[in-house]
Amino acid sequence: MNRPDIRRLPKRSDPREAVMKLLDAVKSKKLLTEKVGLAEALGRTLARDATSNINIPAYDKTFIDGYAINPKDTVGASTSKPAVFKAVGKLFPADYPTNAEVASGEATYVACGAPIPKGAASTIKVEETRLNGNKIEIIREIKSGEGIIPLGDDVKQGALLLNRGQVLRPQDIGLLASIGMSEVEVFKKPKIAILSGGDELIKQCRKDPSKIANNYALVVGGLASELGATAVLNGIMPDALDQVQAKIGDALSDADIVVTIGGTSVGMKDFVPDAINQLGKPGVVVQGVSLRPGAVSGFGIVNGKPVVMLPGHIGSCIGGFYLFVAPLIRFYCGLDGDGLLPCLIAELVEEVDSGPQFRFLLLHLKRAEGKLLAEQVEGGSSALTTIVKSNGYSIIPPHTILVKGTNLDVHLFGKLELAQIT
Amino acid sequence: MNRPDIRRLPKRSDPREAVMKLLDAVKSKKLLTEKVGLAEALGRTLARDATSNINIPAYDKTFIDGYAINPKDTVGASTSKPAVFKAVGKLFPADYPTNAEVASGEATYVACGAPIPKGAASTIKVEETRLNGNKIEIIREIKSGEGIIPLGDDVKQGALLLNRGQVLRPQDIGLLASIGMSEVEVFKKPKIAILSGGDELIKQCRKDPSKIANNYALVVGGLASELGATAVLNGIMPDALDQVQAKIGDALSDADIVVTIGGTSVGMKDFVPDAINQLGKPGVVVQGVSLRPGAVSGFGIVNGKPVVMLPGHIGSCIGGFYLFVAPLIRFYCGLDGDGLLPCLIAELVEEVDSGPQFRFLLLHLKRAEGKLLAEQVEGGSSALTTIVKSNGYSIIPPHTILVKGTNLDVHLFGKLELAQIT
Repeated sequence: MNRPDIRRLPKRSDPREAVMKLLDAVKSKKLLTEKVGLAEALGRTLARDATSNINIPAYDKTFIDGYAINPKDTVGASTSKPAVFKAVGKLFPADYPTNAEVASGEATYVACGAPIPKGAASTIKVEETRLNGNKIEIIREIKSGEGIIPLGDDVKQGALLLNRGQVLRPQDIGLLASIGMSEVEVFKKPKIAILSGGDELIKQCRKDPSKIANNYALVVGGLASELGATAVLNGIMPDALDQVQAKIGDALSDADIVVTIGGTSVGMKDFVPDAINQLGKPGVVVQGVSLRPGAVSGFGIVNGKPVVMLPGHIGSCIGGFYLFVAPLIRFYCGLDGDGLLPCLIAELVEEVDSGPQFRFLLLHLKRAEGKLLAEQVEGGSSALTTIVKSNGYSIIPPHTILVKGTNLDVHLFGKLELAQIT
Repeated sequence: MNRPDIRRLPKRSDPREAVMKLLDAVKSKKLLTEKVGLAEALGRTLARDATSNINIPAYDKTFIDGYAINPKDTVGASTSKPAVFKAVGKLFPADYPTNAEVASGEATYVACGAPIPKGAASTIKVEETRLNGNKIEIIREIKSGEGIIPLGDDVKQGALLLNRGQVLRPQDIGLLASIGMSEVEVFKKPKIAILSGGDELIKQCRKDPSKIANNYALVVGGLASELGATAVLNGIMPDALDQVQAKIGDALSDADIVVTIGGTSVGMKDFVPDAINQLGKPGVVVQGVSLRPGAVSGFGIVNGKPVVMLPGHIGSCIGGFYLFVAPLIRFYCGLDGDGLLPCLIAELVEEVDSGPQFRFLLLHLKRAEGKLLAEQVEGGSSALTTIVKSNGYSIIPPHTILVKGTNLDVHLFGKLELAQIT
């Protein structure tokens, strides 16, 4: 029966197939890269393999503060029959390159990091030597190479240092600096524009302009930036089709990805899907997925750019975010696998039944008995406090019973969650 | 025997006692706080408990798109004997506050999030009703409260929302916004000044000013900022006591914590400890700890501010960093426990013998067989690639043998390490 008061969602899609469709729609896109200074590269993703065109160290140097000698001079040395050396000269790290030489029976003071003089092939710590008058005595045989960091010990010329796709950590950046790089090519951060639906938010903003009425946008934006995107809060879409369409159109002209919150269901003022359809082909691709919470999530494609529709209830919104937006960010950042979405293994403390749909299972993690435990977080999908109590999630297939003690892959909402797990 | 070419380190301290001394020296310091806008608060530490002075939601609202009714009108309703309603009016979220009322036998259309009209106590989804002419039919008994998010369901007035010391995640920030906050009081980030030792670095900088010669400072600075500090690279200390002293003195006037790299041992040009002693009382407190690598780490206190001395070999430098600098940052950030230093439990894949000193054990983590495995990373303490191959560490007491299969607490170097663990 055709009812004026009912609009029905299309048949709900399998969430795995829906994500595949989304990624298929963007996968031919060439990922953009940019060069950034090393100090700004923390957490960015390397866009090309990094290889070294130099050896590190570039020359043999001493690992210790001591004396550089020819180890042959110590053959047969012992406490009672020390090898005796004349101290000749001093070398410091800044003395490289040097023409200094030690002859047989000579020892040159070398400060940690100093180059090894010609004729020497070992160093021995000052405190391991004896001073006898103005002579240095060594009381054991010294092996060739002892006390020395040989040329190329850390990095060999031509070595692959870091792979494309590596998320740059402080030590990676230090390594790039050590081969003489001052900037590095990384994937551009995708720009995500976030739009919130609803006249009630506009009303709240008017009532108190200093407050943030669209706080869910703040949550979604924060989660997106933790995963490597640049999030832009593009304000509120009024409850009118033409204005929703204008807002989404504006956002699309500037951002790589547009995310809407609310207005995606079958309520009388849920204009987002219609607006997307009017903006360009193919328009809405998926509206509604078999995921609980998160069922009224979906996405459209307009001029090759994705518009992800997230539900207005915060629990459902987060479900849709991790289903659709997180993989998109990973793709645009040039990341494989989980990328910046940390995944931990935790032991489920109670039985969980997914029910007839895919389940977006909210989990609280805690450490106990030398293990990481995961407990289900109960709470309405409209309650932000439910998300605050959670650290991450698992998506469980329909009709699945996970028994107590199951080792579960738990995706943390973001890197900051680790600080909350005690 | 007094030898002009030997300076001896004091007896090496127990690293646990050394850290205790360091934290004791700063613990009376009042932690500074500052107010920041919510959008800038991600990852910052809350300086006071957050409680709510409002209920969320502030009124009963509908969870679904449907009809608001008096549930008493549905007593005895069934498919064959539906309860019949006259459709009266429409309510949307922006209609709050409303004087709308439904009488017995009336149903008001309510869009998801709309306030509940007086006289109604339940809502039912549109698609669960039947349309008969211009009447709405309901074919089952509806419980009171069905379809409604009651006042205070998410947050009750007076409830404690977040504790002081919470590291603010996107959802926490969203929650603070929802109680009307636009800014939040957080602990100030400690400012850490990093100084690198050595004329050889100055020489390198002169040779090619575009390159970063003191790349270890870049590593230490990156690790410090991942843990919540503001890191400032304060350049290079030349190999001369007065200049080392001047550089440290300048850094102390501006920063909360000064960290030096290199020049802490007993080499002829290791001036850092003497410089600290000349700058003020008590000067050097610990020089040398029983930790391998990291033995020539230490710290001084000058005018109540800590100066941490890190060794010049990168492996030792990182050992000293996590021993001394990480707990300092945690303290200044107002964090308890591990704070932003993520800790995971992993299974050791091989036997490890700590040896006669505390062992700063570098570990590479990987996921396999539904577990997190930890393997020791071998490599010289002067090789940055050793740190690049590692994800984190454990500090193992002396004379300890950890058997294969031991569940070990592994501290990640920082949050970004999680992206590397596959």
